[in-house]
Amino acid sequence: MRSIELHPALRGPIDVKSKQVGLEHPRALLRVLPDQPGRLLGLANRHVVSAMQFERDTLLQLFRLAAMIEIQPSLQHLPLSGKILITAFYEPSTRTRLSFESAWHRLGGDILSITDPATTGMAKGESLRDIAEMFSNYGDAVVLRDTDERSVYEMIETLRVPILNAGNGIDEHPTQALADLYTLFKWRPALCSEDDASRVRIGIIGNPSKMRTVRSLLILLSLFYDRIDEVVIVNPSRDLFDEGQRELLESRGLRIRAEHQLRGVLPELDVVYINSIAWIGDTFERLTGDMGLSADSGLRPDAIVLHPLARGEELDESLDDTDHNWYFSQARGATFVRMALLTSMVERVHRVADVRPPS
Amino acid sequence: MRSIELHPALRGPIDVKSKQVGLEHPRALLRVLPDQPGRLLGLANRHVVSAMQFERDTLLQLFRLAAMIEIQPSLQHLPLSGKILITAFYEPSTRTRLSFESAWHRLGGDILSITDPATTGMAKGESLRDIAEMFSNYGDAVVLRDTDERSVYEMIETLRVPILNAGNGIDEHPTQALADLYTLFKWRPALCSEDDASRVRIGIIGNPSKMRTVRSLLILLSLFYDRIDEVVIVNPSRDLFDEGQRELLESRGLRIRAEHQLRGVLPELDVVYINSIAWIGDTFERLTGDMGLSADSGLRPDAIVLHPLARGEELDESLDDTDHNWYFSQARGATFVRMALLTSMVERVHRVADVRPPS
Amino acid sequence: MRSIELHPALRGPIDVKSKQVGLEHPRALLRVLPDQPGRLLGLANRHVVSAMQFERDTLLQLFRLAAMIEIQPSLQHLPLSGKILITAFYEPSTRTRLSFESAWHRLGGDILSITDPATTGMAKGESLRDIAEMFSNYGDAVVLRDTDERSVYEMIETLRVPILNAGNGIDEHPTQALADLYTLFKWRPALCSEDDASRVRIGIIGNPSKMRTVRSLLILLSLFYDRIDEVVIVNPSRDLFDEGQRELLESRGLRIRAEHQLRGVLPELDVVYINSIAWIGDTFERLTGDMGLSADSGLRPDAIVLHPLARGEELDESLDDTDHNWYFSQARGATFVRMALLTSMVERVHRVADVRPPS
Repeated sequence: MRSIELHPALRGPIDVKSKQVGLEHPRALLRVLPDQPGRLLGLANRHVVSAMQFERDTLLQLFRLAAMIEIQPSLQHLPLSGKILITAFYEPSTRTRLSFESAWHRLGGDILSITDPATTGMAKGESLRDIAEMFSNYGDAVVLRDTDERSVYEMIETLRVPILNAGNGIDEHPTQALADLYTLFKWRPALCSEDDASRVRIGIIGNPSKMRTVRSLLILLSLFYDRIDEVVIVNPSRDLFDEGQRELLESRGLRIRAEHQLRGVLPELDVVYINSIAWIGDTFERLTGDMGLSADSGLRPDAIVLHPLARGEELDESLDDTDHNWYFSQARGATFVRMALLTSMVERVHRVADVRPPS
Repeated sequence: MRSIELHPALRGPIDVKSKQVGLEHPRALLRVLPDQPGRLLGLANRHVVSAMQFERDTLLQLFRLAAMIEIQPSLQHLPLSGKILITAFYEPSTRTRLSFESAWHRLGGDILSITDPATTGMAKGESLRDIAEMFSNYGDAVVLRDTDERSVYEMIETLRVPILNAGNGIDEHPTQALADLYTLFKWRPALCSEDDASRVRIGIIGNPSKMRTVRSLLILLSLFYDRIDEVVIVNPSRDLFDEGQRELLESRGLRIRAEHQLRGVLPELDVVYINSIAWIGDTFERLTGDMGLSADSGLRPDAIVLHPLARGEELDESLDDTDHNWYFSQARGATFVRMALLTSMVERVHRVADVRPPS
Repeated sequence: MRSIELHPALRGPIDVKSKQVGLEHPRALLRVLPDQPGRLLGLANRHVVSAMQFERDTLLQLFRLAAMIEIQPSLQHLPLSGKILITAFYEPSTRTRLSFESAWHRLGGDILSITDPATTGMAKGESLRDIAEMFSNYGDAVVLRDTDERSVYEMIETLRVPILNAGNGIDEHPTQALADLYTLFKWRPALCSEDDASRVRIGIIGNPSKMRTVRSLLILLSLFYDRIDEVVIVNPSRDLFDEGQRELLESRGLRIRAEHQLRGVLPELDVVYINSIAWIGDTFERLTGDMGLSADSGLRPDAIVLHPLARGEELDESLDDTDHNWYFSQARGATFVRMALLTSMVERVHRVADVRPPS
């Protein structure tokens, strides 16, 4: 800086080729998934609050639409033209907000942002019922993040437009789980092919009772229990599940094992999902250092690493340039999954896929 | 939450029918109002700062356009396509900002928001003259809210684009008054019919000298003095009017009475306007408890309640599901009135109504 | 205010004519500049971080496109339709942010804003590498302002979309310098005509080593060294240049003189550039009072004053209504220059000028 010499990266155009993101994975996913966009009509005019709301076939069609968008993101007909999204991040998060707002804009819509919790009606003591009434008047859909897990449930009592839960306390974060699963299937499309019997073993470094992303992901994974050998929860804590949480997942067919040490289990894992943040009330509990991953951790050569980002020290940058790194793909794919979901929720699937519009 | 059972509202689509907002009221209003959109051309390229700027016929045509938009909010031709609105909320207000931004987006325009007073030029000591110069360069219209009532007047000295006053201290909030009156006329269209002699008695729980919404509303009501039996100001204070304020309203024909107790006067009132907030310098004075309204207050069966929201304890939620509740309609209608007004101010009425464009 | 009489400015439409901004200057500039828009293709898909990146002919074509846009700002074909700009102002600045956002919206694009540094990933310890990865996924271009001059350089290591430096510490602010030069050439188009030998003497009240706007401006001025008699740096300090800074400028042909008093040098100057703010770490050093300019300072009758705004006491409002005032034109022109530059950076010049689109 402030040198007489120009930085090399400023001497010519951005070397996009060396940084290009390939399309072979979404294309491969597209090939194994049947074309049944009609399944998505069931999402029209619905709130999306919990991963419990999804069925296996609906998920696969969402991923199919997401892959179509990833391959051709410049849509011919903007399905959300004239539609307004309200993004209400009472718990601030630039990354998640930008992902949703980018998704909505790429679909052609406009956005009203609430980013400063201190100045909103909620801070002034306005009830969620009144805020929901306001949102119903001023927007066509709402994305909400709040530290209080009850807020989204209070709003749906009166909301007249669909709301999407972008994180409610330590409860759920369903679209993050959608992005996680979309990445998994792009990596190994055979996992959602009917003609294949591939199975994987998935490690999750985190706490299912305290991490909303883990909670939602486990619910979605349970829909594909027959393609998963086992989910190994890796955590030093012995207090891993809410009452009934493990039982529910197992009743849906998912095999679950808990381990307290990472090193011993790593050689077994095809997929390692790691998360930096555990919600305890309003504060964060970071995973302890010995739960961290680096290029030297002893991952299997073909294992992939997922992380919902933002990361802390638990995910070392030495992994960034290895083939284990699927977390950047995961962040990138989140936008396409959200585009597919939002289009479905506001009844605009017929503008991007071959189905009849609602009458 | 975090239960194994899904919340009932998540089991299917939003039950919109049970929550649907009817269109019979705006349709009825449309029937009684003559079609003279040319009156709106007089608003082109004008600032809107004070309710004193409006004439009776212009108001009625604004409401006519608002009703047309309410009936068919998806406009065929977006009149503000390519136009930029600057929303400068130096006094924060999510509700009012969202109403204006929703209105502008639904008209097809783009928005630049200033929501963090601490980081703006004004906080850094920049003059309003310089800020007005900046706004004239970067936007096609401005919406301003500021705790200092003089700010909007300083800006109009040099602004080259129309500014709309969204609340200047305890002075005025003209578009809130427009929304109030629009609601009144939707409730009883006969009030603006030439062929009818309906009259109403209106109670206003609040302080005309300290509440900007009340100040602006009284000025607009005075334009319809012949359809109003009386305005009853209900307030424990004896200090209700600025010097000359009451005299002005009475000289325009409005009959005004002051009462200190609510209970005695309620049986007389067709319309009760209640407000939660009085500006005193930069702080709030809430109405005392005995000025509150609930379903048990003894309202006349056919009386309606208006409130500019956000509410405090003075407006009980027990009223929400009664026929007295017209405050939700009022909040909803505010967007349509603002759409009509903004379209007129930036010379785009000819794109939504049958008038000649400006040459 | 709160008077019974309406403010005169509210009695009729805005008197635009008396405030109108003429187009004779951009038209005159257009006449002297050759039509070679192909030069702008070299900016496609490039970061813009330093004024060192520009060549003389590219600058002139940028100014030509800016003048075309200034003359006809309502573009027939919106070149950035469907494109998303991320404006990340980690160092807050309403004025600069609004200028960029207005430019991008007028080109038809959508915007994601980051205005609250306290809630961003960067505040939470996220690395610039990860933020750059996020921006590459969610936007098509980035505008960054940060107090740390290294941030923009760290981001370009991994960014896959063009970034524009809107101020990095005390290092550079290249688009402000573009706006400065565009104003200079609009004022005297002969300065960029090949058929003329006009020369000017330019005074800069400020410190080249501590002011990013001055640093960038001097670099651009050095490209036109043959049309500049001399640049006179006016500053009480004796510590005016970074190591090598003056030598670089002089090696490019620029004649530089330093003066410590303003009054003595003013009668020599055709152009006076004044700035209010010097960065010293994270704080401001204002110019001392005797460096200020007013209508009575003794400017030559035909001299012009430039100032990047916002101003402090150093630029007296008495100058606003004089012919010396070119700083308002400078602020206004900044948007047109940025429109021209952003269009070029995201490979859309072919939509506004007669060149072949990229294959």
